[in-house]
Amino acid sequence: MSSNLQEQRPRVAEAVRSQAERRKRVVIVGGGFAGLAAARALRKSDAEVVLIDRRNHHIFQPLLYQVATAILSPAEIAAPIRQLEAKQRNVSVLLSEITGVDVASRTIEAVSSGADVRQIAFDYLVVATGVRPSYFGHDEFARYAPGLKSLTDAETIRAKILGAFELAVMTEDERERARQMTFVLVGAGPTGVELAGSLAHLTKVTLRGNFHRIDPAKASIILIEGAKRVLPTFAESVSRKAAGRLEKLGVKVVTDVRVETIDDKGVIAGGNRIPSATVLWTAGVAASPIPKMLGTKTDRVGRALVDPFLKVVDAPGVFVVGDAASVMQNGHPVPGVAQAAIQEGRYVGRLIEKELKGRQVERPFRYFDKGNMAVIGKNYAVLERGWLHTSGFLTWLVWAFVHILSLPQLQNRLRVQRQWLWTYFTGQRSSRLIPEPRILT
Amino acid sequence: MSSNLQEQRPRVAEAVRSQAERRKRVVIVGGGFAGLAAARALRKSDAEVVLIDRRNHHIFQPLLYQVATAILSPAEIAAPIRQLEAKQRNVSVLLSEITGVDVASRTIEAVSSGADVRQIAFDYLVVATGVRPSYFGHDEFARYAPGLKSLTDAETIRAKILGAFELAVMTEDERERARQMTFVLVGAGPTGVELAGSLAHLTKVTLRGNFHRIDPAKASIILIEGAKRVLPTFAESVSRKAAGRLEKLGVKVVTDVRVETIDDKGVIAGGNRIPSATVLWTAGVAASPIPKMLGTKTDRVGRALVDPFLKVVDAPGVFVVGDAASVMQNGHPVPGVAQAAIQEGRYVGRLIEKELKGRQVERPFRYFDKGNMAVIGKNYAVLERGWLHTSGFLTWLVWAFVHILSLPQLQNRLRVQRQWLWTYFTGQRSSRLIPEPRILT
Repeated sequence: MSSNLQEQRPRVAEAVRSQAERRKRVVIVGGGFAGLAAARALRKSDAEVVLIDRRNHHIFQPLLYQVATAILSPAEIAAPIRQLEAKQRNVSVLLSEITGVDVASRTIEAVSSGADVRQIAFDYLVVATGVRPSYFGHDEFARYAPGLKSLTDAETIRAKILGAFELAVMTEDERERARQMTFVLVGAGPTGVELAGSLAHLTKVTLRGNFHRIDPAKASIILIEGAKRVLPTFAESVSRKAAGRLEKLGVKVVTDVRVETIDDKGVIAGGNRIPSATVLWTAGVAASPIPKMLGTKTDRVGRALVDPFLKVVDAPGVFVVGDAASVMQNGHPVPGVAQAAIQEGRYVGRLIEKELKGRQVERPFRYFDKGNMAVIGKNYAVLERGWLHTSGFLTWLVWAFVHILSLPQLQNRLRVQRQWLWTYFTGQRSSRLIPEPRILT
Repeated sequence: MSSNLQEQRPRVAEAVRSQAERRKRVVIVGGGFAGLAAARALRKSDAEVVLIDRRNHHIFQPLLYQVATAILSPAEIAAPIRQLEAKQRNVSVLLSEITGVDVASRTIEAVSSGADVRQIAFDYLVVATGVRPSYFGHDEFARYAPGLKSLTDAETIRAKILGAFELAVMTEDERERARQMTFVLVGAGPTGVELAGSLAHLTKVTLRGNFHRIDPAKASIILIEGAKRVLPTFAESVSRKAAGRLEKLGVKVVTDVRVETIDDKGVIAGGNRIPSATVLWTAGVAASPIPKMLGTKTDRVGRALVDPFLKVVDAPGVFVVGDAASVMQNGHPVPGVAQAAIQEGRYVGRLIEKELKGRQVERPFRYFDKGNMAVIGKNYAVLERGWLHTSGFLTWLVWAFVHILSLPQLQNRLRVQRQWLWTYFTGQRSSRLIPEPRILT
């Protein structure tokens, strides 16, 4: 039950400990892939690790789109951070939001409920606060086009999609009905592509026979991408295959077109208005405000520029990892994907442990790209790994296998696997809930 | 795609149909146990059935307390009403809220999103709108003590319970910590008893080892009942056993004591203040406002008084079933339980079908009591059925078996069964989520 978490504790207690005998404290902000990996890499360390998140749960983000399309329940891709860290005795978990960082005095300011503000001192700080949706300066789009970064986002999108069909049933106006049954996805990166594929399957299979007055299979799904092709970070041949598969599923793919406006009527893209009641934002992201609080240089989207050791220049003991960091390697940015976040977190955890033991770390961080995948509807995925490009059913099996194994707890692995088998063989989805107060717009 | 749902449709279409050839329309308001049973009883009927609910999903209410205590996910005890009714061709499902009933002109007023108000005509109306928490004239309690009637309620309670431990970790004030770790349940009917038992298991088993600075097993769980014993509607010997089991699980049972105040500090009961951050309301319920709109007599809690055929007097073709109805039998009220709701719904569905065929119904509704059960923590339940009173492990197995079989879809049955096995053997709970924005008070 010992703790020196609180700086407001009696000074006597602090005074009896000399600087030398005090256990070093590593504060990790963010319980995503990077933060958890950093905490775990410190499991054999003498340091006291404080893991802070404003959520009580870790999210397996690669499957968020399946929560948004009613295949999975929120809890199936989430795990309580406390439970994940229960066996690691040197970690304390704190549910708090960070409101300030003072690099000079080595403290952060954390707010829990209400007005309860506390200062927490650190010897090492690892910022792993990730990204959130960003609308490229058009924050007014946020109201009409939710992004997909948290479980709340996923539930909002789920309610919008399911609610659109409920509203389509009720209207007698053909144009309004068509607007309700038009879904526009802005951004054809992996999230946009995967969401579009899953949405196509939902409308064509899952909802079949559920409505007497409308045919959900007639819904329009339009995927708009500003770049010249879908999955622009993948190889061109992979993009072509992905686009072909999407078209086969009935998704209308529009590339090289920019979205100019998103409002309550729909979108304007490439000068054309597309009436749509459900616009989803799968385009840009920006870093949380935390990296900016470090007083260091950040890139265009607020990610901290770090040195090859993932350290913040001029702020000894401060690291930024995962999507919150802008890491360059061979002149290219390390991509904002789960495997990069895990590798960065683990690297920094190990580096801190070595420094605590008085050893020098000479090898900078190296990102090892294990390959990238995207799934498109049922039975089809694309994969690229170096020179290897594959697509189709076997790739889809590999995708499913890799994702099941990567889930945080045995429990999640079993549950997701069962849901997939159920959806695969019955076409049904198990989480078709519109929460109260229902969101129908 | 045919429908005469909309009264605003061209009058020509209506005019060509004579009164005789028009299909009769049965409007059922509420997709709970009673409403669904009524719809199903009409499956072979020629009538057009319109099933209206303000939620898109049916909830299996007897297991709501397990969502509130993180054992089950919301979707596991819910099923989309559309999916449940997909095979019954004469049912249309409508997601709307009822804002008015005009018994004289036989129309109801339904509001969907925003300002979209519509009039729906009916030949028969079945009101099955259930109950909501009621604070006996103390509506100010609602803010501090949520009741448990919807999935949203269950998630609110779950966030409060899990959040209390997070706040207990953060405070340095011993009294505040004790307040955060004190849970007061007001009302020891089946919901209060089952919630208390599940909460005891959560604190003693599931959360063990998840906190370094506090011991969740030391949480106080206080169950307050105004009557002389817990489970006051059960036999006295059953109440005694239930109370004994609760005490064994560490729940403090306080009977014959009334709660006078609930505020942000806790409760005042029997003149004593109990500091508590988490007060849960498992006491009173009242009917939704719909029965009052019928212009008929209602009882003290707003339930419609119906005749022995569950008809509303002076309103031909209008029925009230389930918790929304006050039904007397042999001088005793029929209890507000799932089996009564199902029997009433089925009875009215069949009665309407017979009337549509021109037959007279002479047998009034008879409630057949299949028995009542309550589960208390792990491995223990009580049951009474007529002269038969049992308790213990075997009764608990019967309880589990009956509840699994009663769930609405095969999918729910499989999922709940697996979650129970998981929780039974590992002590873990699978839905420990505090949603954003988190509710920590």
